[in-house]
Amino acid sequence: MYDTDAFNTFLDQNQDRFLDEFAQFIGQISVAADGRGVNDMAALVAERFRQLGAAVTVYPTPGSPVIYAEIGPEDADRTLLIYNHYDVQPEDPVDLWDTPPFEMVIRDGVIYGRGTGDDKGELLSRIQAVEAWLATQGDLPVRIKWVVEGEEETGSIHLEAWVKAHADQLAADGVLWEGGGYDEAGRPRFGLGGKGLAYFELRCQGPNQDLHSSLAPMIVNPAWRLVWALSTLKDTNDTITLDGYMDHVVPLSDEDAARIDAVPLEFEAMKQQWGLDGWINGMSNDDARRRYIGAPTITICGIESGYAGQGSKTVLPAEATAKLDFRLVKGLTPELAHTLLREHLDRRGFTDITVTMMSGEAFAASPPGSLVERAAIAASQDTWGKTPVMMPWYPGSGPVYPLSTMLGMAAVFAGATWHPNARIHSPNENILLNDYMASMRFTAAFLARFAALQA
Amino acid sequence: MYDTDAFNTFLDQNQDRFLDEFAQFIGQISVAADGRGVNDMAALVAERFRQLGAAVTVYPTPGSPVIYAEIGPEDADRTLLIYNHYDVQPEDPVDLWDTPPFEMVIRDGVIYGRGTGDDKGELLSRIQAVEAWLATQGDLPVRIKWVVEGEEETGSIHLEAWVKAHADQLAADGVLWEGGGYDEAGRPRFGLGGKGLAYFELRCQGPNQDLHSSLAPMIVNPAWRLVWALSTLKDTNDTITLDGYMDHVVPLSDEDAARIDAVPLEFEAMKQQWGLDGWINGMSNDDARRRYIGAPTITICGIESGYAGQGSKTVLPAEATAKLDFRLVKGLTPELAHTLLREHLDRRGFTDITVTMMSGEAFAASPPGSLVERAAIAASQDTWGKTPVMMPWYPGSGPVYPLSTMLGMAAVFAGATWHPNARIHSPNENILLNDYMASMRFTAAFLARFAALQA
Repeated sequence: MYDTDAFNTFLDQNQDRFLDEFAQFIGQISVAADGRGVNDMAALVAERFRQLGAAVTVYPTPGSPVIYAEIGPEDADRTLLIYNHYDVQPEDPVDLWDTPPFEMVIRDGVIYGRGTGDDKGELLSRIQAVEAWLATQGDLPVRIKWVVEGEEETGSIHLEAWVKAHADQLAADGVLWEGGGYDEAGRPRFGLGGKGLAYFELRCQGPNQDLHSSLAPMIVNPAWRLVWALSTLKDTNDTITLDGYMDHVVPLSDEDAARIDAVPLEFEAMKQQWGLDGWINGMSNDDARRRYIGAPTITICGIESGYAGQGSKTVLPAEATAKLDFRLVKGLTPELAHTLLREHLDRRGFTDITVTMMSGEAFAASPPGSLVERAAIAASQDTWGKTPVMMPWYPGSGPVYPLSTMLGMAAVFAGATWHPNARIHSPNENILLNDYMASMRFTAAFLARFAALQA
Repeated sequence: MYDTDAFNTFLDQNQDRFLDEFAQFIGQISVAADGRGVNDMAALVAERFRQLGAAVTVYPTPGSPVIYAEIGPEDADRTLLIYNHYDVQPEDPVDLWDTPPFEMVIRDGVIYGRGTGDDKGELLSRIQAVEAWLATQGDLPVRIKWVVEGEEETGSIHLEAWVKAHADQLAADGVLWEGGGYDEAGRPRFGLGGKGLAYFELRCQGPNQDLHSSLAPMIVNPAWRLVWALSTLKDTNDTITLDGYMDHVVPLSDEDAARIDAVPLEFEAMKQQWGLDGWINGMSNDDARRRYIGAPTITICGIESGYAGQGSKTVLPAEATAKLDFRLVKGLTPELAHTLLREHLDRRGFTDITVTMMSGEAFAASPPGSLVERAAIAASQDTWGKTPVMMPWYPGSGPVYPLSTMLGMAAVFAGATWHPNARIHSPNENILLNDYMASMRFTAAFLARFAALQA
């Protein structure tokens, strides 16, 4: 379908320059959490697209800019929408990094630096793949519309509004999402969507200052209030007891259940890595898999009140705070979760506990058999000689709903820049040099397959 | 009973020197929480006792030294044990102090500095009262045995062992405890004991690192475990549900209930000061008083797990910790509370939650009518022309059990160096100069009354 020898030769000849560009990307801080460097990074990405010959627009948002690029024949038979992001997780804790987080270091075939895996490596390797295609194959086989946002790590809170305002120009025949990696057995792991997410902060105010705990028989303690409220949301069997929540969950279809059951997971490796004896309620690996992918969650991500340092302090706390995330499956939305939570608390008298929704992303899963899914499977075979694991949707979340389901397009999460020890979001984030270069070959194969497959 | 004119004249003549000595006491840091300066402070206190002519011994402990001083006729008819402490609370937050915490500053009749109220002011004023007595009245009317410890602010964890080792030498006809202050209506507030205290740290370990919250359907979350466990200890009506705890509580006798009901408390001032609409469950002031003084507690002093900072972070926490204090009434002991808590958690399957008892003090309340109580009431009338409020026991705690009940002696908390805005334990701790000098007159009156009253 295309001249792979010429393509691969170009990669070999340009590898050093490609890595120099990669070092520039890693060297540019772009932390969405506090906004450091996001505008400079957006400018750098936009400039790289312009070098490619793309038509580029940088759209300001109340947060990080959205970059939109178009390239390829305007009269192509097919149009592909690609999603990536240029922001990264904060580098904390810095002292656990062996090398500076915002300096790309290559050692023994491993490329270190914040964003190497998530998501600058994949973003740039896809751009470089397009350059290599143009240099060795002539024009692109498809029209590409590329959305690169800068707030993925903070819940993409401004993306949906941007998509709604530009829905017409985003029409395409499918969406190539940010990819992932391969598992402990070397299988590329792809997916067709992700769970939704609703993130809440709960807060209870007591007295206007921490008081001496001898006053506890008289004065309401916000830490107790919060503990009591939280304990009504899920029971000790890990069964969600939030009023109405489970009633809205659409039960797994037999087909979805079978697709989940077919996902290979390295359970023993996970247990060992995290120091665990087993799963919740001692459930089997098969049950754990079904629940991991198929079930909604309510998770205490954090809780804080009063004095929790060394030693003892006899205080009655002034306030108590908890952070909760809800991972949403089919039938649940962030707005519904918010409403149910508020009503559940009110019904039990917890009107003194405020609930703030900090971010929300809808569940999204494209149906199997789409053009982009078939192209991804074929390109995986072309690139690695392997059929990917295809998850019906990821247990994690992302802004896939507005860019796929909402626009009536199918999406696929495809690509494999991560290896199992890539330490995404952690100190010493890294990918392998071989995987970086393979990502370019996968991108080219995907474009070729996507252009050529029967609809 | 003694020449009050001569005594008072001596105070007037020596006030400047007394205040210089007070400045020296305040200037010497003595923070038990981190041990800063406690040995130097112990030496300073011991030297001041020697100047008085007392026989002084400084006893090392694994923590701060205990100072023991004896003075007065060895053949006196009565012996009084006095308790004070030379340690102070940490000065944090320092930036909220208007003047340096460890520098005594007198402004408009107010004496500022850490320890002015708790407890250096009272300790030194009692010593200076003894000096004034000796200079103006001849020998003391009683034998005094004085215990001054340096760990009161951290739970007096080494005092009980020291008392047990020196029980014989501590025999006396009653105990004059650390005093307190006077209330918003200017009534001196005394007491006959204090609630017990058991302080626990609960800890639950999950995975060996914070994990991505998408793993929540599989992996035990220690924050949920801790919330569930805590919620079984007390219900939303603030009723303690720890198995067996309330069964051990000795119900208030009609007499104790009546004594509690007689304690005047400034409820409206408290509400206003702390920004409160009312008390737990909307109970009446009378019910609040009965509960404040009469009821045991289980209080969450602090809780911590996962991410609780600004914004959102989707983590499944590695561990969760809570600090609990139990205020103990008659029938409860720290050891019993510890055993009941452990058994309660085990019975519900919370064997994964560790419980560490960080400090324990037993409930202690001397019966009314004791020699020391009568002496305190009479001395209050002598000094201020007021009958003190006499609490059957304080809602707070202290090491009063080992030095009174355990040794078979009655104790009284008496003295009034604090005014309602003394900011004990807080920045800008202060007492009034007038109250400091009055404490000397109260001490002299107490000694005279204690020596003269019918047994």
